[in-house]
Amino acid sequence: MDGIGIIGSGIAGLQLGLQLRQHDIPVTIYSDRPADDFGKGRLPNTVAHHHTTVARERELGIDHWDIDEYGYFGHHHYIGGETPLRFFGEFAAPSRALDYRVYLPRLLRDFDERGGDFEVRPVEPADVTALSEQHDLVVVSSGRTGLGGMFPRRADKSPFDTPQRKLCAALYEGIAYSEPKGVTMSIAPGHGELLEIPMFSVAGHVTALLFEIVPGGDLEPIGEARYDEDPGGFEKLVLAKLRQHHPTTFERVDHGRFRVTGPQDLLQGGLVPGVREDYVRLANGRYVIALGDAHTVVDPIVGQGANCASYSAWELGQAIVTDPNFDERFCRKVAQRRENRVHATSDWTNLMVRFPPAPHLLQLLGSMARNQVVADEFTDNFSYPERQWDILATPERTRSYLARHGMA
Amino acid sequence: MDGIGIIGSGIAGLQLGLQLRQHDIPVTIYSDRPADDFGKGRLPNTVAHHHTTVARERELGIDHWDIDEYGYFGHHHYIGGETPLRFFGEFAAPSRALDYRVYLPRLLRDFDERGGDFEVRPVEPADVTALSEQHDLVVVSSGRTGLGGMFPRRADKSPFDTPQRKLCAALYEGIAYSEPKGVTMSIAPGHGELLEIPMFSVAGHVTALLFEIVPGGDLEPIGEARYDEDPGGFEKLVLAKLRQHHPTTFERVDHGRFRVTGPQDLLQGGLVPGVREDYVRLANGRYVIALGDAHTVVDPIVGQGANCASYSAWELGQAIVTDPNFDERFCRKVAQRRENRVHATSDWTNLMVRFPPAPHLLQLLGSMARNQVVADEFTDNFSYPERQWDILATPERTRSYLARHGMA
Repeated sequence: MDGIGIIGSGIAGLQLGLQLRQHDIPVTIYSDRPADDFGKGRLPNTVAHHHTTVARERELGIDHWDIDEYGYFGHHHYIGGETPLRFFGEFAAPSRALDYRVYLPRLLRDFDERGGDFEVRPVEPADVTALSEQHDLVVVSSGRTGLGGMFPRRADKSPFDTPQRKLCAALYEGIAYSEPKGVTMSIAPGHGELLEIPMFSVAGHVTALLFEIVPGGDLEPIGEARYDEDPGGFEKLVLAKLRQHHPTTFERVDHGRFRVTGPQDLLQGGLVPGVREDYVRLANGRYVIALGDAHTVVDPIVGQGANCASYSAWELGQAIVTDPNFDERFCRKVAQRRENRVHATSDWTNLMVRFPPAPHLLQLLGSMARNQVVADEFTDNFSYPERQWDILATPERTRSYLARHGMA
Repeated sequence: MDGIGIIGSGIAGLQLGLQLRQHDIPVTIYSDRPADDFGKGRLPNTVAHHHTTVARERELGIDHWDIDEYGYFGHHHYIGGETPLRFFGEFAAPSRALDYRVYLPRLLRDFDERGGDFEVRPVEPADVTALSEQHDLVVVSSGRTGLGGMFPRRADKSPFDTPQRKLCAALYEGIAYSEPKGVTMSIAPGHGELLEIPMFSVAGHVTALLFEIVPGGDLEPIGEARYDEDPGGFEKLVLAKLRQHHPTTFERVDHGRFRVTGPQDLLQGGLVPGVREDYVRLANGRYVIALGDAHTVVDPIVGQGANCASYSAWELGQAIVTDPNFDERFCRKVAQRRENRVHATSDWTNLMVRFPPAPHLLQLLGSMARNQVVADEFTDNFSYPERQWDILATPERTRSYLARHGMA
């Protein structure tokens, strides 16, 4: 038997592989694309790593990007409407947003330097049984190739069967960073949200704009517009929508320089959020663990997917290191140790995309504008989704939380 | 609403109350007996606190008994049979055994000094609804008055419907402590086990002997003998059985001084182990949490009941302090955070009382005699039942554990 087999070479698979190599455990990562492709291709996402993830990166020895240069410090909120609200929430420690075409190649190099085995081989569900007999444990960390479907979807944790937002993510130059350097979360009631993220990409320090588009709303054209067919028209459309709906970003645009950084730096689509079972038992009696997108898919509206995958990989890695017995007890312990944070991530994100928004969510957002402690706590809880969900799981919880902060 | 109501004044109820008072949370403990009775009456148990429990006592500010004087350092094992085995396993940090007629009165005094409310009032299941409307949360930590029955018994975690051992616990003088000072765990195959515990009682440093008696075995008369009717005859019987079945304890008996320390210092009986649901929802929508014996009852064969109750109280206390919203999410989080240790405690203990013993348990015990690392780890795992269960949950796990220690 040959150590741990990881199917998938995203953040979850690579971080798990790097952690296991720190403990000299043999690891093979199966990837559907060659190492040389990791730095190329279309923008894969617009991800920020919050400080609990950055702390794990330190533990993993992959904290290669000086947080003073690459980090940012909180969230600038803008909530449109008759009386717009504008406020800042601060992190306890900085977050960091890196283009995964910069991030993942470096992790792959670290993995190689630590003696990890990287195999380019598209794995189909039918191949998993054979792999399970070659490895002590097989982990599926890719939702891409139908592998996620091995793990039954949990109806109790998966309220949506369709995407709740249309998405349009792209990298831009010509937007000055906010002060203090931060993400802007701008809400256009009835139409959707904008996340403006200071990101380090192949082209250097740029800005990611992620439009979260409510279907049928006034921002829908951004989800449909074809950049390739008319780059200038696309950029003009984005500017017009920023002006109308997201003024705190618009006011920092340098109109002479504003443009998408390149034809590949754009991603449109949408995803169906859902939670799958933590593990399955194959017919041969071996267990296979779901990780990352194979386990839990969330809308990017609060930037939690990669952080959740990284967390989940870390907990799985700890379990492998401390209890290398890959039976049902092992799988149940893994499920148990990650459940609170992973489910809270999913539940909280699903609340954020609900339309129309829940009244108690609006109540909390409104309170943030009037209470800095509440604004900072909501913001720092991007590192602790289970604490966010402690506040937002029910209207009673939000009420009781605000009462404890003198906002009855 | 008036803080937390705790029904039951054993270790779980008192430690929880003390922890909450450290955070200025109002607490009422409902006890079925007055404070003056806590130091009196019949020996309630023969409990040792392992080092994770001692560490919690330090956190709780109730570490009143200097571990250098009251502590002990490991387990002296004796396994009878054709070729008896004899070996010592050492703790990473000392355990401590106090008579609860010494321990609980002191905790109650601490609770009173911290402003806790102590109410003498026998609570029946029918009273719980009214209490749930007086308090933010009601915790049931007493299995005594039928209250445990509020929480459904979990068939999946409760394999036994009858006591698996008859018990005879008593305090003695005239037994010299072992060297290093420790508990002796002596196994008489086919007949049962003896736990010899260096205990501090009202009378000072004495020795507790807890006979775990296999029904129908040669030690059964000790379970039946009436000390009150014939103290000398009882002591003679105990000596005879020690000589025959538990020689490593017998060899330290001072025959001139050997005697039970008093007519109240003896307890005979037996208990049905079982695990109950973590919480119930009352008809009025309020949730009630099970703690200690109301939640989990284990045979005393590996001395885990009080440690488990203390652990469970601590986890519940942490949950109350960090998330004072006593809804189903709260209850599920409490269940989740204590599940691994509490269930492992129960599963491991149930394995220890199984008769005939499981072959893989015998394999592990035999290996301990030949490998000091394995002996020490088994011994220190009295502080970490979930780690013990990682080793013992299945024959494959024991085999794999021993292989990792070069004992294939």
